[in-house]
Amino acid sequence: MSLTTPLAGKLAGLQSSAIRDLLKLTARADVISLAGGLPDAALMPRERIAVAAESALAGAAVLQYTESPGLPALRAVIAARETARIGRTVPVDEVFITHGSQQALSLLAEVLLDPGALVIVEDPAYVGALQVFRAAGARIVAVPLDSDGMRVDVLEDLLIAGERPAVVHTVSNFHNPGGVTLAPERRRRLAELAEAHGFWVIEDDPYGELWFDQPAPDPVASYSPQVIRLSSVSKILAPALRVGWMAAPDRVCRAVELLKQGADLCGSALTHQIAADLLTDTDWLVAHIDSVRQAYRARANALVDAVRTTFTDRVRCTDAAGGMFVWADFTDGTDTSALLPKALEAGVAYVPGAAFAVSDSYRNSMRLCFTTSDEAVLAAAIDRLASAAR
Amino acid sequence: MSLTTPLAGKLAGLQSSAIRDLLKLTARADVISLAGGLPDAALMPRERIAVAAESALAGAAVLQYTESPGLPALRAVIAARETARIGRTVPVDEVFITHGSQQALSLLAEVLLDPGALVIVEDPAYVGALQVFRAAGARIVAVPLDSDGMRVDVLEDLLIAGERPAVVHTVSNFHNPGGVTLAPERRRRLAELAEAHGFWVIEDDPYGELWFDQPAPDPVASYSPQVIRLSSVSKILAPALRVGWMAAPDRVCRAVELLKQGADLCGSALTHQIAADLLTDTDWLVAHIDSVRQAYRARANALVDAVRTTFTDRVRCTDAAGGMFVWADFTDGTDTSALLPKALEAGVAYVPGAAFAVSDSYRNSMRLCFTTSDEAVLAAAIDRLASAAR
Repeated sequence: MSLTTPLAGKLAGLQSSAIRDLLKLTARADVISLAGGLPDAALMPRERIAVAAESALAGAAVLQYTESPGLPALRAVIAARETARIGRTVPVDEVFITHGSQQALSLLAEVLLDPGALVIVEDPAYVGALQVFRAAGARIVAVPLDSDGMRVDVLEDLLIAGERPAVVHTVSNFHNPGGVTLAPERRRRLAELAEAHGFWVIEDDPYGELWFDQPAPDPVASYSPQVIRLSSVSKILAPALRVGWMAAPDRVCRAVELLKQGADLCGSALTHQIAADLLTDTDWLVAHIDSVRQAYRARANALVDAVRTTFTDRVRCTDAAGGMFVWADFTDGTDTSALLPKALEAGVAYVPGAAFAVSDSYRNSMRLCFTTSDEAVLAAAIDRLASAAR
Repeated sequence: MSLTTPLAGKLAGLQSSAIRDLLKLTARADVISLAGGLPDAALMPRERIAVAAESALAGAAVLQYTESPGLPALRAVIAARETARIGRTVPVDEVFITHGSQQALSLLAEVLLDPGALVIVEDPAYVGALQVFRAAGARIVAVPLDSDGMRVDVLEDLLIAGERPAVVHTVSNFHNPGGVTLAPERRRRLAELAEAHGFWVIEDDPYGELWFDQPAPDPVASYSPQVIRLSSVSKILAPALRVGWMAAPDRVCRAVELLKQGADLCGSALTHQIAADLLTDTDWLVAHIDSVRQAYRARANALVDAVRTTFTDRVRCTDAAGGMFVWADFTDGTDTSALLPKALEAGVAYVPGAAFAVSDSYRNSMRLCFTTSDEAVLAAAIDRLASAAR
């Protein structure tokens, strides 16, 4: 029995996520990991989910197959939430539930991209998106981030130079890995460019509700229906519900529906019902999300304070404004990939910038995740990093 | 804003499932539907699942992201069950959990098929597989079923004529839609041909445990590691767990793992844990599956008896041996697609054979599902069918 050629071919076209491989190395108990990208399970509403599960399982309906676009009750509450978020009516037919927002990305890539189509991503990039666009055979061009998010002026230069993207992907709020948020004026301009040039914007927004001191700006989607919005309950409730969604024009949702049938038929009526229950319990939900925000804000501030106090101007890092990540650059030429083995030896892990690099190398950068350690541990982590970098 | 060309192109390449569209028409309360393909929710172990959910939610671990190949505890119990089923050791690394076995099919098509690759399916075919293989751009050739399952001699003729399939797909037990089971000698021969010609067999086995009077024969996979086995808990526990799996050589599982990361990252640790709990509760499980078998056997017998008594030699139908479906042929030239509107008027629905046709037209055939009606209702359904066909 021999490996068939197609299998070998497919393997060559894909890369395992660098973060996943790294996580395997950083699972040692004596290492404080700032390398993960996981929300804190201790902050997830376990007891409320248990109540919702018990209530859902009072009837047998949640055990059956459900509709490919998702349980109607869940789509209804998400349509209402998206309507409030983007400031125009999002009909239920324009909400499609996916198995996490990663599946929305993957089905959208199939629907919107032919091999060789141009996709614009941010640099540094969300690797889950990069993996999907690469697998779709897209041509990928990166536009850098600055402290106001995607450099929309660089995108505009590309358009003026004749580039014709099919899709522009942006993590608009509290970027993974970049930590920054797209400024309101850039959002408006990005939407205008999408309409003028006929490309789709995929606004990937898993972190928007995890703001610390002030809410995230109006979504890019609030400026144009040419913007497909993705989000999920993974960061505010629990990843194990596997509930993500897209808010997209009806014809996009119907094309995605055909693909969803072939991909996995439908989602879980049980986890959809649990998510719908929690999302409609508004008073509880507001208080719950607020408690997650407060915990993450305290951790993010502790991390950023420790970095700034310890490294002063040797490391420049983003503000702790929301989300799960801080992006930090050594200003003295320290190579973060070369530093990593020493950091692991000192008992701290992070993800080197190179793991997220598309055009730039981000050789002096690193992504630091603050979600799963408390303030004292985060301070200790930065102490260890300082000793490794000495 | 205009529909982009790729979207229109993708749409042209896909067909919505004829069954799904039909189901929308047959949801009327006054219609007895034999058209569905759903297991009976009333037979699903709702209370046992509620206990398992409560137990799983005693800890926060089940709320987090899990590994792409599935929760280790679930993979372990399935490896043990597959080992017992196929009679050789299936290591945990060769078990990969998917979002229902439909996702296993869809990821395997990506891994094993290049556009234009030849896939052999059965005629009539499982439409979920057909949809996946068509979307993958495969060339599809059908081999007919008879009362002993796939005509492996016809497959052999194709191989002698020089056809070189990459994949042969078979629903080996209690075929959907054909109702038949592949005979043991044909299983052995199919496995020999796979080894001799280097193709993969995908043995799609969601119904194997739903036998009525005698267990299904040894799996095709028991004869060769060139056979990838798919199954799920959807028909024995509940579809909403969205737990399917493949048992496949390690290099196939690793290729699927890369695709799974891009497709949707991972499954739900919560529903995986619930499934693992139920599958390891052996005494309970044996009794539960037995009760489902007994209920379906009584329904299947009632349906088959009613068809044979009512139509005598005007309709020939498969025996009630297991699974969820009976396949029936009008021997007098009655066109089942033409009959359907009259049948709906008389208050009964079925799926015309044409919906499953690949090469043959199956114009005089129909698929009857017996899972969700009791014996009296099934008898009434056949009465209505007889009046429509008069």
